[in-house]
Amino acid sequence: MPARPQNVHQARLLRLLRDEGPRSRAELGDVVRLSRSKLAVELDRLVELGLVEGAGLAASRGGRRSGIVRLSPRLRFVAFDIGATSIDVAVTDGELEVLGHVGEQCDVRQGATVVLDRALDLLGKLRDEGLIPQVHGTGIGVPGPVSFRDGMPVVPPIMPGWDRFPVRDAIGQELGCPVLVDNDVNLMALGELHAGLARSVDDFLLVKIGTGIGCGIVVDGAIYRGVSGSAGDIGHIRVDDDGPICACGNAGCLEAFFGGAALARDAAAAASGESPQLAALLETHGELTAEHVGMAAAAGDPVAVRLIREGGRHVGQVLAGLVSFFNPGLVIIAGGVAGLGHALLAEIRSVVYRRSAPLATGNLPIVLSELAGTAGVVGGARLISDHVFSFTAA
Amino acid sequence: MPARPQNVHQARLLRLLRDEGPRSRAELGDVVRLSRSKLAVELDRLVELGLVEGAGLAASRGGRRSGIVRLSPRLRFVAFDIGATSIDVAVTDGELEVLGHVGEQCDVRQGATVVLDRALDLLGKLRDEGLIPQVHGTGIGVPGPVSFRDGMPVVPPIMPGWDRFPVRDAIGQELGCPVLVDNDVNLMALGELHAGLARSVDDFLLVKIGTGIGCGIVVDGAIYRGVSGSAGDIGHIRVDDDGPICACGNAGCLEAFFGGAALARDAAAAASGESPQLAALLETHGELTAEHVGMAAAAGDPVAVRLIREGGRHVGQVLAGLVSFFNPGLVIIAGGVAGLGHALLAEIRSVVYRRSAPLATGNLPIVLSELAGTAGVVGGARLISDHVFSFTAA
Repeated sequence: MPARPQNVHQARLLRLLRDEGPRSRAELGDVVRLSRSKLAVELDRLVELGLVEGAGLAASRGGRRSGIVRLSPRLRFVAFDIGATSIDVAVTDGELEVLGHVGEQCDVRQGATVVLDRALDLLGKLRDEGLIPQVHGTGIGVPGPVSFRDGMPVVPPIMPGWDRFPVRDAIGQELGCPVLVDNDVNLMALGELHAGLARSVDDFLLVKIGTGIGCGIVVDGAIYRGVSGSAGDIGHIRVDDDGPICACGNAGCLEAFFGGAALARDAAAAASGESPQLAALLETHGELTAEHVGMAAAAGDPVAVRLIREGGRHVGQVLAGLVSFFNPGLVIIAGGVAGLGHALLAEIRSVVYRRSAPLATGNLPIVLSELAGTAGVVGGARLISDHVFSFTAA
Repeated sequence: MPARPQNVHQARLLRLLRDEGPRSRAELGDVVRLSRSKLAVELDRLVELGLVEGAGLAASRGGRRSGIVRLSPRLRFVAFDIGATSIDVAVTDGELEVLGHVGEQCDVRQGATVVLDRALDLLGKLRDEGLIPQVHGTGIGVPGPVSFRDGMPVVPPIMPGWDRFPVRDAIGQELGCPVLVDNDVNLMALGELHAGLARSVDDFLLVKIGTGIGCGIVVDGAIYRGVSGSAGDIGHIRVDDDGPICACGNAGCLEAFFGGAALARDAAAAASGESPQLAALLETHGELTAEHVGMAAAAGDPVAVRLIREGGRHVGQVLAGLVSFFNPGLVIIAGGVAGLGHALLAEIRSVVYRRSAPLATGNLPIVLSELAGTAGVVGGARLISDHVFSFTAA
């Protein structure tokens, strides 16, 4: 196994260098409140462990010039972001900068063995490019509920063949490094916390609107998972008893009204009737997705515009309640369907600002993610680096 | 100001003695991982500060008999639990046992000065009984949103005359002790955490159904307040767009459907029509409350039974969404209307177990509070004792 910090001071120094980049010994001393000699001991030990290295001298602050240190440029974290229909694999350096990122279409319903083999093949491509001298840790996201403690999916509805498959232990054995497994939406929230709009926010929500709808919850700068790891499972919150029947068997769930699957269903219905533009797109492409609805709306199709507005309203109705309950400092909307953009966002904002508790919305930004496809892999690297750069007494 | 601990070890020892009661020095040494000599130094210092005292010798564990220590029996915490129509004042010892508890009807709309003077008068009664040699801290709950940092209510809807009134500083000056102010529902949740059904639960929800409806959120054993202190404000979550108009101006809020106020309204309507039993109760008592609806239901009145069932269904619909989102380990139902008891509870459970994410309800107890009227004052004492028994470097 790769080297790990040996006490809390070393762990704190590693996380500082990860989040703030190279720093002089004098600057680090200001932050960590260690005596100069104790700081030197800890940094020397981190250099011996191969986790940190010297990087020249800083400009003088009046006295002797202080040495700059940085994370070893040989540190590598790996992230697998496994979606319902895609795999993304990335490798980052110690500061979580993405050095290489490959992805491909892949149906998660092929089961754990097939999909994880594909992910390892993709990692092999990055390795062949010489990007990975050693792997210090791997973070894995999957599109379903996860027992974080056990490192495995638990009764995941859209992942047949994955129930209680030991993803963490299997990949850990394969790669010889620490591995953590989490829900994909939690990883996106961690990605936003590390590199996105939530960098300075302690308590926030990330709502992912993809095929389904889920929510990542961050409390005090860390993922809140709930007592059985299912926190944020908002896709089946009731919007209206009179709504469409949901895949879960209940009527009127949020996902029965909106999300990629519901939007495709509604667009197909409109294509065979009221919307000639959607009908034309269906004929060209053989199927209709959220992206096509967005294209039709951009071209002025009133039916497509109405579908987006209604979707935004239903998301807003659920989100308004969660904002009243949770009083977050920020809400980020992400996922493929969020690509519908500002028409969707405007409707969500309108409902939340009107229906949530006034104190909770007084200063609440609701924004679209700006990380596009990288939130999941950055979040995976963040998850495992928080673990590797930590120290817990045995 | 009364004495406070001078380092984190002393703070930890005080909280241990508060929560676990008198302990031998040997037992404390097992828990806090201090050397015998260091432990002795810290305990001696706490004795000098008047916070701890010796209490005889423990049975032998094989060697020399170890001395028992306990919190000083002269420690006193005070709690004010200010409701919409009542004040409760209690005094506890250091272990948060209630030594005296007085209350009276009082309309919070009389404003901060009048109501706080009444609370101080009630405290005077307890003082006259000789129960309060000294006050080490006071916790105050009010029925509205609070800026916890500033120690004052902020735009509280049912508390005219209280907006930004400096409750913490005014009472602190009066009593010469540390004071903290919080929302009354948060105090009830802390009371359950300390002395109720949540004693061993880290993440739970307390739903208070009184005149209005609110929720206390406990994350990792501490109150979660949200970024502006309004977390748990669930009374205005939308149940149905076609519902009654709420006092807040929106239609179909939870409180417009249920809670003490809505139940009184619906009972009065039924009394003038379909329910002769409610009509008889109205004639006898001059008004109808949740208690009367409970009496009519117990006597078999089908209209009263229906009102309770419908109320439980609406609470359940909102709670089902929050359970999916938050995945708590326990839900406690409390407040005056919760006195309707098991008919209400059965309906809430039925909806939540049917409509929440299965992983979130797999092992989720939904129970009625067993603390009756004392949750708020015990929670107030817990809030301030957590503060007084803490140490933060300046």
